[in-house]
Amino acid sequence: MNNTLFTDFYEIVMGYTNYESGETEKKEYFDLFFRSNPLKGGYAISGGLDNIIKYINNFDITDKHIDYLRKFNKFSEGYLSYLKNLKFTGDLYAVPDGTPVFPNEPVLTVKANVIEAKFIETALLNNFNHGTIVTTAAKRILEAASEKPIMEFGARRGRSIPGAVEASKYAYVAGCVGTSNVECGMEYDVPVMGTMAHSEVCESDNEYEAFLKFAKFNPNDCILLVDTYDTLNVGIPNAIKVAKEYLEPNGYRLKGIRIDSGDLAYLSKEARKILDDAGLNDTKITLSNSLNEEKIKSLIDEEAIFDSLGVGDNIGAVNDRLGGVYKLVAIEKEGKIIPKIKLSDDSIKTITPGVKKLYRFYDKESGYAVGDLVTLSHEEEPKDEYTLVNPVEEWKKKTIKNFNVRNMLVPIYINGKQVYELPNIHERRQYCIEEFKTIYPEIKRINNPHEYYVDLSNELRELKKQMIHDNVKIKTKELK
Amino acid sequence: MNNTLFTDFYEIVMGYTNYESGETEKKEYFDLFFRSNPLKGGYAISGGLDNIIKYINNFDITDKHIDYLRKFNKFSEGYLSYLKNLKFTGDLYAVPDGTPVFPNEPVLTVKANVIEAKFIETALLNNFNHGTIVTTAAKRILEAASEKPIMEFGARRGRSIPGAVEASKYAYVAGCVGTSNVECGMEYDVPVMGTMAHSEVCESDNEYEAFLKFAKFNPNDCILLVDTYDTLNVGIPNAIKVAKEYLEPNGYRLKGIRIDSGDLAYLSKEARKILDDAGLNDTKITLSNSLNEEKIKSLIDEEAIFDSLGVGDNIGAVNDRLGGVYKLVAIEKEGKIIPKIKLSDDSIKTITPGVKKLYRFYDKESGYAVGDLVTLSHEEEPKDEYTLVNPVEEWKKKTIKNFNVRNMLVPIYINGKQVYELPNIHERRQYCIEEFKTIYPEIKRINNPHEYYVDLSNELRELKKQMIHDNVKIKTKELK
Repeated sequence: MNNTLFTDFYEIVMGYTNYESGETEKKEYFDLFFRSNPLKGGYAISGGLDNIIKYINNFDITDKHIDYLRKFNKFSEGYLSYLKNLKFTGDLYAVPDGTPVFPNEPVLTVKANVIEAKFIETALLNNFNHGTIVTTAAKRILEAASEKPIMEFGARRGRSIPGAVEASKYAYVAGCVGTSNVECGMEYDVPVMGTMAHSEVCESDNEYEAFLKFAKFNPNDCILLVDTYDTLNVGIPNAIKVAKEYLEPNGYRLKGIRIDSGDLAYLSKEARKILDDAGLNDTKITLSNSLNEEKIKSLIDEEAIFDSLGVGDNIGAVNDRLGGVYKLVAIEKEGKIIPKIKLSDDSIKTITPGVKKLYRFYDKESGYAVGDLVTLSHEEEPKDEYTLVNPVEEWKKKTIKNFNVRNMLVPIYINGKQVYELPNIHERRQYCIEEFKTIYPEIKRINNPHEYYVDLSNELRELKKQMIHDNVKIKTKELK
Repeated sequence: MNNTLFTDFYEIVMGYTNYESGETEKKEYFDLFFRSNPLKGGYAISGGLDNIIKYINNFDITDKHIDYLRKFNKFSEGYLSYLKNLKFTGDLYAVPDGTPVFPNEPVLTVKANVIEAKFIETALLNNFNHGTIVTTAAKRILEAASEKPIMEFGARRGRSIPGAVEASKYAYVAGCVGTSNVECGMEYDVPVMGTMAHSEVCESDNEYEAFLKFAKFNPNDCILLVDTYDTLNVGIPNAIKVAKEYLEPNGYRLKGIRIDSGDLAYLSKEARKILDDAGLNDTKITLSNSLNEEKIKSLIDEEAIFDSLGVGDNIGAVNDRLGGVYKLVAIEKEGKIIPKIKLSDDSIKTITPGVKKLYRFYDKESGYAVGDLVTLSHEEEPKDEYTLVNPVEEWKKKTIKNFNVRNMLVPIYINGKQVYELPNIHERRQYCIEEFKTIYPEIKRINNPHEYYVDLSNELRELKKQMIHDNVKIKTKELK
């Protein structure tokens, strides 16, 4: 599937001006960042780099694309020929998928010829925004569940079939144990799981018969959905009857039950008692029913007894989005890097200029991440002692010592050549789980989290202030 | 792209039980419906049937799929061979894309062999849920804008690249004038539009130079983004300068300006004055910046002056979802249709049993839709006079006369053969626009809308009551 033309039309229109102005070799620098954490949380977990790599590697403008663009009667044949041969020949740095990331720091940077750099914007943002919102949503669910296994089954509420396949994949990278989505399992090697729906119970004359039939053909992994009629009085007794009368005589155990409605905390505790009393101490309890962070937290608070959870809507079809943006931060002119800034009436929207690096400080003893630092690219890596200064409220300072520092932006493409080997999906998942351990619990809190430090180096802060000042002067000059 | 395995694993697991029990020819009936309107509105606009047809027509289980399923070590070779040849051979009825639809009425019905009927559930729900939430979100935006032209440009916030392409298409069907999404334009013949971004202004030494360069290569459709530095004091004066010094001497007019930040209502009114004073009465004003229904309503209330709006996030990446479900409502046994019901502790979740039809009554004089009626499939079409009865609160009645009645569920497949010709995208858009005119303004209200009547026929209401009663008896019997 060739998605190369997945770009906003204005990218192509702007590129035309650049082409006709003879600027095809003009180098530009862009930062990808977001301005606030999604889901009112204290962090985001990055995702979508895998698809960004796929987009760039499959980038191929074909005759069909050119024929389509020609119909606008807007672009010169010279420009269309140029587009026909367009490839990404620049540098791209990014944090690996599964990395905790924070507002107002560059999580992906591009240096490229102007037309390329703009053309890929839409695909970069789409994939980063989608990958990150879903990975973050899944991580919050996992965190709320205190690391109990979560199975993702939101395919039916996803945004398009391919969108749902990607979402199930991101959920697995975040740490879910598997998905119900068979296509995702096949395409991405994600563990696939699932047992029975209410229709399976309803189509039989009674629940016991439905359970028995199911057990007969799924003796090894018999998980019964017990809430179709009455969980405690009918469903679980029927499940136990199947365990005793069919499974055990044939050498099998009842693997589990699933409860999908009602007061899950109460039902789960009662269910555990009934199962234990019947000698089914090893039968697992799975809960589901529009679970989200709040509902899961409440299950934990009320000491619900469960072995795993199924979550649908609130991962792939989560009701929030990441507002990642991609902004010009510098251009090259006569071999020199000229930082660029965009002011805005809304000060939060004023961008930080310049070509940057992103560092993370880890406390040497605890391993926790204590803060991030954005510097200009030529600055030296901090060592020994460093004082972080809040970029807005400069009196807020924090001196850190005894740290390990990590350069967060990894080279993915250099001169258009991929230099990064994407870890396989299981490695990405493991990385994501390990990385999350470096984040303080206060930052990971579901509600009202502590704010993580993301500061600018002194030089970068001064540059930004100076450029805001100069821009105001330019404005005044233009007015005359 | 073969998405046939886009199904929840439990569908395949349940199918295995049916296969091994010799039930492959067992006919089942399913209804697709949703329980509440999205976005706290009074209606939904259906979408996604186009992709449901695509899924069913491309349904093809290949050797690759079978090899993958074999690895579970769970299914017999007999079942895998059966799946290899699986096709949809049943009947499917649905409302056409772009139809106003309401909670608790069947919007799509399936009669098929049990394994087929379950296998396609996930793809049916995914496409209907996605198509409907996006079409509805776009319609609400259009309604809030009092039919001013809306351009959709949410590609960068979409849920995956293909998800965003589908969303841009649904936005067009809803009535948007076009999209920024070039791939969508090419694939689906949706008008594509777009002009310039802030980066185009920032990369130049000053705004005037950037505007002039853009005007030179886009003289016919020069729309300038005027808010990079200072909309009223710098941006618009620069745009006017370009109009006067470059465009007009060369025989062109300044087509438009776009304002993307600040107080849009105030800025638009001032902008109009400045443009008019400069003789640019024909220069259009486009507004954008995270617009949603509320913000657009407030622009209208404050008499903002604009010719069109650009909307990104709140269409394709809208923060809500449709909770469409697909439930077993009947089975066939020895040639007889046996209605099925699923009770629930939560009475809203108790489904309506039986094979159904859906009728809509239109007032003959005004053309407005006055209510919907769900009947059993063998009941006669209502004529002359009909008394609608609220299915929960039976004292709520409404007698209607002088109506036209419409059978809403159109045959799409009969015995697996497609009998419905999907209208082209422009026809679907026109249909959607016309259909929306039949809905009372009170139902379309953005906040606190009036509830539309969706009632059950007397026979269906009695059947449901009887079956609830019988099921309670079954439960009691099972307990003994």
